Amino acid sequence: MWKITENSFDPKRLRHFETALTQGNGYVGTRATFDEHYPGEQRTTFVHGVFDDVPVVFTHLVNFPDWTALDIILAGERFSLAEGKLLEYRRRLNLHNGVLTRFVRWESPQGHVSKLIFSRFASLANQHLLCQRVLITPENYSGEVRIESRLDAGTDTMRYQQWNWLDQGVEDGSIWLRLQTSATKIEAAMAQKVFFSGGSEAEILMPNVVKMPSICTSCQAETGQTIYFEKFSSLCTSRECEDPKSGSLSILAEMAQEPWEAAYAANEQAWQKEWDRNDVLIEGDAEAQLALRFSIYHLLIAAPRTDEQVNIGAKTLSGYGYHGHAFWDTEIFMLPFFTFTRPEIARNLLSYRYHNLPGAREKALEGGFQGAQFPWESAGDGREVTPTWVPDPADRKSLIRIWTGDIEIHISSDIAFAIVQYWRLSGDDAFMAQRGAEVILDSAKFWASRLEWNPQTSQYHLSNVIGPDEYHDHVDDNAFTNYLTRWHLHTAVALAEWLKTYDAQAASLLFTKLGVDEQSLADWATMADQLYCPGENNQGLIEQFGGYFQRVDALASDFDPRTESVQSILGIEGANASQVLKQPDVMMLMYLLPELFSHETIQANYDYYTPRTDLTFGSSLGPSIQAIMATRLGSQADAYENFMRAARADIEDVRGNASDGIHGASAGGLWQAAVFGFGGLRVEDDYWYVKPHLPAHWKRLQFKFVWRGQEQLVDIRAQEEQS
Amino acid sequence: MWKITENSFDPKRLRHFETALTQGNGYVGTRATFDEHYPGEQRTTFVHGVFDDVPVVFTHLVNFPDWTALDIILAGERFSLAEGKLLEYRRRLNLHNGVLTRFVRWESPQGHVSKLIFSRFASLANQHLLCQRVLITPENYSGEVRIESRLDAGTDTMRYQQWNWLDQGVEDGSIWLRLQTSATKIEAAMAQKVFFSGGSEAEILMPNVVKMPSICTSCQAETGQTIYFEKFSSLCTSRECEDPKSGSLSILAEMAQEPWEAAYAANEQAWQKEWDRNDVLIEGDAEAQLALRFSIYHLLIAAPRTDEQVNIGAKTLSGYGYHGHAFWDTEIFMLPFFTFTRPEIARNLLSYRYHNLPGAREKALEGGFQGAQFPWESAGDGREVTPTWVPDPADRKSLIRIWTGDIEIHISSDIAFAIVQYWRLSGDDAFMAQRGAEVILDSAKFWASRLEWNPQTSQYHLSNVIGPDEYHDHVDDNAFTNYLTRWHLHTAVALAEWLKTYDAQAASLLFTKLGVDEQSLADWATMADQLYCPGENNQGLIEQFGGYFQRVDALASDFDPRTESVQSILGIEGANASQVLKQPDVMMLMYLLPELFSHETIQANYDYYTPRTDLTFGSSLGPSIQAIMATRLGSQADAYENFMRAARADIEDVRGNASDGIHGASAGGLWQAAVFGFGGLRVEDDYWYVKPHLPAHWKRLQFKFVWRGQEQLVDIRAQEEQS
Repeated sequence: MWKITENSFDPKRLRHFETALTQGNGYVGTRATFDEHYPGEQRTTFVHGVFDDVPVVFTHLVNFPDWTALDIILAGERFSLAEGKLLEYRRRLNLHNGVLTRFVRWESPQGHVSKLIFSRFASLANQHLLCQRVLITPENYSGEVRIESRLDAGTDTMRYQQWNWLDQGVEDGSIWLRLQTSATKIEAAMAQKVFFSGGSEAEILMPNVVKMPSICTSCQAETGQTIYFEKFSSLCTSRECEDPKSGSLSILAEMAQEPWEAAYAANEQAWQKEWDRNDVLIEGDAEAQLALRFSIYHLLIAAPRTDEQVNIGAKTLSGYGYHGHAFWDTEIFMLPFFTFTRPEIARNLLSYRYHNLPGAREKALEGGFQGAQFPWESAGDGREVTPTWVPDPADRKSLIRIWTGDIEIHISSDIAFAIVQYWRLSGDDAFMAQRGAEVILDSAKFWASRLEWNPQTSQYHLSNVIGPDEYHDHVDDNAFTNYLTRWHLHTAVALAEWLKTYDAQAASLLFTKLGVDEQSLADWATMADQLYCPGENNQGLIEQFGGYFQRVDALASDFDPRTESVQSILGIEGANASQVLKQPDVMMLMYLLPELFSHETIQANYDYYTPRTDLTFGSSLGPSIQAIMATRLGSQADAYENFMRAARADIEDVRGNASDGIHGASAGGLWQAAVFGFGGLRVEDDYWYVKPHLPAHWKRLQFKFVWRGQEQLVDIRAQEEQS
Repeated sequence: MWKITENSFDPKRLRHFETALTQGNGYVGTRATFDEHYPGEQRTTFVHGVFDDVPVVFTHLVNFPDWTALDIILAGERFSLAEGKLLEYRRRLNLHNGVLTRFVRWESPQGHVSKLIFSRFASLANQHLLCQRVLITPENYSGEVRIESRLDAGTDTMRYQQWNWLDQGVEDGSIWLRLQTSATKIEAAMAQKVFFSGGSEAEILMPNVVKMPSICTSCQAETGQTIYFEKFSSLCTSRECEDPKSGSLSILAEMAQEPWEAAYAANEQAWQKEWDRNDVLIEGDAEAQLALRFSIYHLLIAAPRTDEQVNIGAKTLSGYGYHGHAFWDTEIFMLPFFTFTRPEIARNLLSYRYHNLPGAREKALEGGFQGAQFPWESAGDGREVTPTWVPDPADRKSLIRIWTGDIEIHISSDIAFAIVQYWRLSGDDAFMAQRGAEVILDSAKFWASRLEWNPQTSQYHLSNVIGPDEYHDHVDDNAFTNYLTRWHLHTAVALAEWLKTYDAQAASLLFTKLGVDEQSLADWATMADQLYCPGENNQGLIEQFGGYFQRVDALASDFDPRTESVQSILGIEGANASQVLKQPDVMMLMYLLPELFSHETIQANYDYYTPRTDLTFGSSLGPSIQAIMATRLGSQADAYENFMRAARADIEDVRGNASDGIHGASAGGLWQAAVFGFGGLRVEDDYWYVKPHLPAHWKRLQFKFVWRGQEQLVDIRAQEEQS
């Protein structure tokens, strides 16, 4: 249960597999395009933190020169799946070591049959190293085998040319290239080297073509003789390396005697270590097992292990969707996996928010508020980068106003929530004192300035917001936002008290820096108490926002069967006017703050909101949380259905948009659904417990997590039926 | 008076000279960047009609692979004006034959002195042929001279990668490359060939580098020995050529024995023929003479001689300003030059409007109107391509709404006006019957549907428009628009009557096609009579639009001294609220329809509107028309001042934006100011006459034009002073 396989080649699924089989190591991510090019492909290599400016969406991850490209010319004919006959085809991503292998038997237009075996990986042992190999065997002919490779400075990003060429050359048997992003001025260097054996009259040329240093190899191969071609590429940037050129060249210079075997073994070892900490074992459900490992794999290859200045975009490093921007998807959906199994990575991701406080302060100030307001979309420098306007697909002269950057404000509390969760799990008081507290207190200050006092109700309110359910915008008193804000203010007050005890001097310095004093804390406590949070109505229901129950009632199933979201069917205004949800805010609230609600209340709200939620084509964030809530209510069938809906998002492309990249939140949500849902793991202040609810056909669920620095193992086995 | 010279190199003027020295032949236009690259340059080659889609501005001219690029390596050092010492530098564009020459003596960082003489031209004899030569002489060293050239498929357009690579190769001693625009699917092929002599051990390699076929030449040169390097490039597209690759290769294959000399002579002959028809001779004013020839040159190199499906963009083919989009600048400012001297070209440009009637009909329909409404900005397919929103330079999250595409509607009448002017000059009844009439009648139908009946005034009105003066938008009853509309409707009725007589069957078919009948014609006549056109007030003034006289009164000189437009100083809203004009609509109206106004009325309006017009930094369209009106009123000093203001727009860059491209309307206006203003040429229905008003220091003004197929020469000599 470790291998994602593609057993025949279907051009219609080209981009889906490019996403699904993406490789990476937490520094670099590369989509699984074919080495030799195919029409309609999306060749993409991203590096964390390498953003550049672009119209409309402000900033996007920059596509790097493609390290995988090979032109293979066999006895004068160019190898391409778009020509000739494909006699055999198998592709396989081994999740256990991150190696992608492709086996091809190909008959050329002239009838020459060749066997080609491609392998490649982005080393987890050395994140700057990218390895590729191809074995070529002519089966019924002999002739010249030519393989050409290059570093292309002309690489574009969604047709945008972001790179300025700086310099290039040939040194120590490697070609190299230096580039710089045009606005953000990040320098990148790549180098490349080739090993080649198995034929006669072997020749390696390295033409230093302007903007495209190249390596051209050729040899004569006899029938049945196998040519071994190994290519190693390295990549460094000025973000982590003083001299990217020397950095990338030295990685290749230091390679061992048998470079492929050595690099392969080191990578495998690093992956083994990773899975030892992260694997979740499911017995009795092969599909669930593979899908969960697939999700964990995609979280692991996107996870920054050595960088505190980057976050994980909503589509990880696997596609152009959302341009590499990070959302609450990280803190609420992906982070728990890291917080529980790889706290070092969780700390990096949370530190990203700490380092980007200046951007959050700028956003608060621009809105006329105080403190720190985190951006709905965040990229290289932590400033708000949500597009304000995007072209209307239906009318090329119109634009659609995107409001989330202005009023989807719950993200500041989501970040605070993730920090507290990390603290609770790790016991990392130093992090909380040095970084976490500043984030939580300064964003509490934002909330205090953002709350609106209403003398009629004698309460505080939050009007004109968007909750997680984005089908409804410009709403007042969104339950999720208001409850989380109240939690945030209470938490900030308690945290301030803790900090005074933990490190009085640090507390004093921080309070001075933020302009927070005892009066502020007292005010926050009062404001939290006086913040309106919608209570249960006579049916036990919490209204998602003020006036929601007056919207046109409709169930998602009213629109079935369908192949698109309810919002697509009704239009933006139509969905806004209805009760159909993209995702259920009240369920999300009850998931995060379960202590506030009784079992009966949760049940009543689950029963009301579930049929009104577009779980199939609404938010990809919905199903995993829905699965967890269903397990808590004992609705095992619903739980499993939603678990599998999340499981299939990218592996099966059930939403039809996997080509844009992996749904990172869905992957993280799937882990939560397995561990917190079926596994029933709950963590309190100073203990943890499990209340398992395994699906009936599951034989076993085993997972690990780290609790206060120590690894915990939970192994749940279904009772053997009496025979 | 034929040479534009640059006698020393000033990097600050880099982009200005790139525009000013642009070369072309009416098919292709190339900015005058240096062969060897310089930081901050804007290397650009445009081909008429080759547009592709792009965000925000919808469509833009696509930058082609640069045919001029050369990397020159002299004894191991790369030639670059950014390094070493520039001992001598002269550059010269010969307007008489379109050849650009650069003479450079350069000392390398290591002290090697070389003389380099570059020449190049886009052949006017064969519009697909581009010629380039460099002569290199080592003065104090001997060593290897290497010259590398290429066709680069990675060329971007304002950082946008519009090209899809199709194919490439090396054939018959030429490299070639096939590309395709990504959305509009226009195929382009380029080929390139090199001749090389003068040194020893000469070598030519043609590496077929993927996406960048290259030619690398090298030889050994002795001190004092001159190396001759000649490069020929060819370019064809699927717009005019069935097989662009074969087309471009055959042009190079067919080259003569002494290719440079032969191509040079053919080009010179073609230019001689052109100037024989177009030159305007001014004696006694060297600056005016050179500026006028400069303007004519830029009109000639942008003029489509073989293509009816393209127009001339506001910035010709010389820069990125306005993205290659065509405005009324063509019909009202540039076309008279062609109509009077090159009617075949005028016919092509007017046919562009005829062929693009479908786009104009689509625009009318989208606005809820009938007939044909021409787009304010037009590109490849004649649909409206005015950007609706552009980023606000002051706030990256805001956009500015551009209203001209919605409500600057006078262009439909401007086109009708230009067609009638062409008809009057050429007597080309066939064109009018087959094409012109359909344009004029169908746009009359648009006007009839657009007019608004007001029962209070018992008149028709046009509210919510923008006139030529774009400082004021959303105005009602703009004098220019309303008078031109009335003229258009009357003209359409008269034209319909003419057509019935000229070709009754054609008339009947056209009326049926357009849904026009006798009742329509009667309605149009009535509507024209009942259309409100503001008359003189008690001071003899015509109000530019309803309520203009109530705006805050201000003179342009109130803001002097200044280096920016009054709109920049006051802001968009501030300028809108004032009486200051970008250009004077009432003067423009009196220029086009002089028969409607008495001398006294013109004088009164000239005296009122002139000081309220931002002639220095307002519209570049203003000064030339102002000069003409001044000559008619006998204000010779004002006339000359405004003539020279227009003359210096690009040659001196007085507006500071010549880097965006040539002000095509200003160039065309300058010709009109010379011929219609100082020359005093007026054309009536069946005769023409001149009423010269030469500036006092001009000794002679000679110009030619074509009247009903026959060349007319006007030669005006100032009376010799009595000695």
